[in-house]
Amino acid sequence: MIYTISKLCGTAFTLKKGQYLKVINPEGAQVSDMILVNPHDIKEKISSGKTLDFEESILISTNNFLWSNRSNKMMQIIEDTNDRNDFLLAPCDSSTFAHFYDMHDPHPSCLDNLARHLKKYGIMHDEIPTAFNIFMNVAFDSMGTIRVLPPTAVAGDYVLFKAEMDLLVALTACSAKDSNGGCFKSIQYEIINPVDH
Amino acid sequence: MIYTISKLCGTAFTLKKGQYLKVINPEGAQVSDMILVNPHDIKEKISSGKTLDFEESILISTNNFLWSNRSNKMMQIIEDTNDRNDFLLAPCDSSTFAHFYDMHDPHPSCLDNLARHLKKYGIMHDEIPTAFNIFMNVAFDSMGTIRVLPPTAVAGDYVLFKAEMDLLVALTACSAKDSNGGCFKSIQYEIINPVDH
Repeated sequence: MIYTISKLCGTAFTLKKGQYLKVINPEGAQVSDMILVNPHDIKEKISSGKTLDFEESILISTNNFLWSNRSNKMMQIIEDTNDRNDFLLAPCDSSTFAHFYDMHDPHPSCLDNLARHLKKYGIMHDEIPTAFNIFMNVAFDSMGTIRVLPPTAVAGDYVLFKAEMDLLVALTACSAKDSNGGCFKSIQYEIINPVDH
Repeated sequence: MIYTISKLCGTAFTLKKGQYLKVINPEGAQVSDMILVNPHDIKEKISSGKTLDFEESILISTNNFLWSNRSNKMMQIIEDTNDRNDFLLAPCDSSTFAHFYDMHDPHPSCLDNLARHLKKYGIMHDEIPTAFNIFMNVAFDSMGTIRVLPPTAVAGDYVLFKAEMDLLVALTACSAKDSNGGCFKSIQYEIINPVDH
């Protein structure tokens, strides 16, 4: 069954070790922020610093693992038809819109959407780490300068993850215009059991 | 007064808004991991994801700010005589030594040294985020591949930070051989009042 996250929204769900998660870009050019937590001990969560260190790369794609702050493998990327994700930048929040867009009125954000759906599991805003930003196209040059470019993902592109441990997953359809090529779109996902894969 | 952190050790102290912190490389080629926390509310802490996002750079040096997970400025870098720091990689811990060095016996680590000195403020291992790795020389290419190289810092190099808010600071003399050009050395620091600067 394929689930849809409407534009500017998010969700959270659990995944069993061995299950697969397919995150799909139904219209193309849309980013999805993903947070992973150990549902049996919510202090263990996805770590950008540990992942970049152990995978020895800024760019994380097929065959790479996503690691936790306790140095456990949380997921492996099995397939990535777009081959561009970001693991440098924090989820967009109200300060993002003030800083980059000079927008000071309330606006949906990935941080709020992640926190809203993680709250019932006891995880609050402050505890949400840097997300794995699926399909996000962050360019960097040799001087380290960062530019957020429109995603290269086209309609139908997907990333297939395998759960290396039981997981609590929070997922968004990102709310920052520049990250999504200028307009907001939906994200889809599918949970696939090992026997069906 | 100049304080010395012995090789393979760490410390923690508070800094008032407006004070300066000078982190010095007394022998050269030594890394120092730094964690910043709001002493009035320890859930607010330094954020790599927010800093790289708002500073629009992987490389953080003179004039850049270090930002918190609540999007507040924690420090500004006023002077950086070496001009090379890292904000990508997690502090070294026991898993680092197992993963990269095939060392499974107990070994001092930045994570343990940070946690030991932050424990009395109520901050535990799991809550320590990616540190700002002063003097750490992490090279990356256009494919995103990361290589940890010996620090370029020579004896006497320093980074001068200004506190933009009251801060709890934890600082180490890093314990990972590859990050420090093959041998462990001390780190020094000085707290300077605005009137003395």
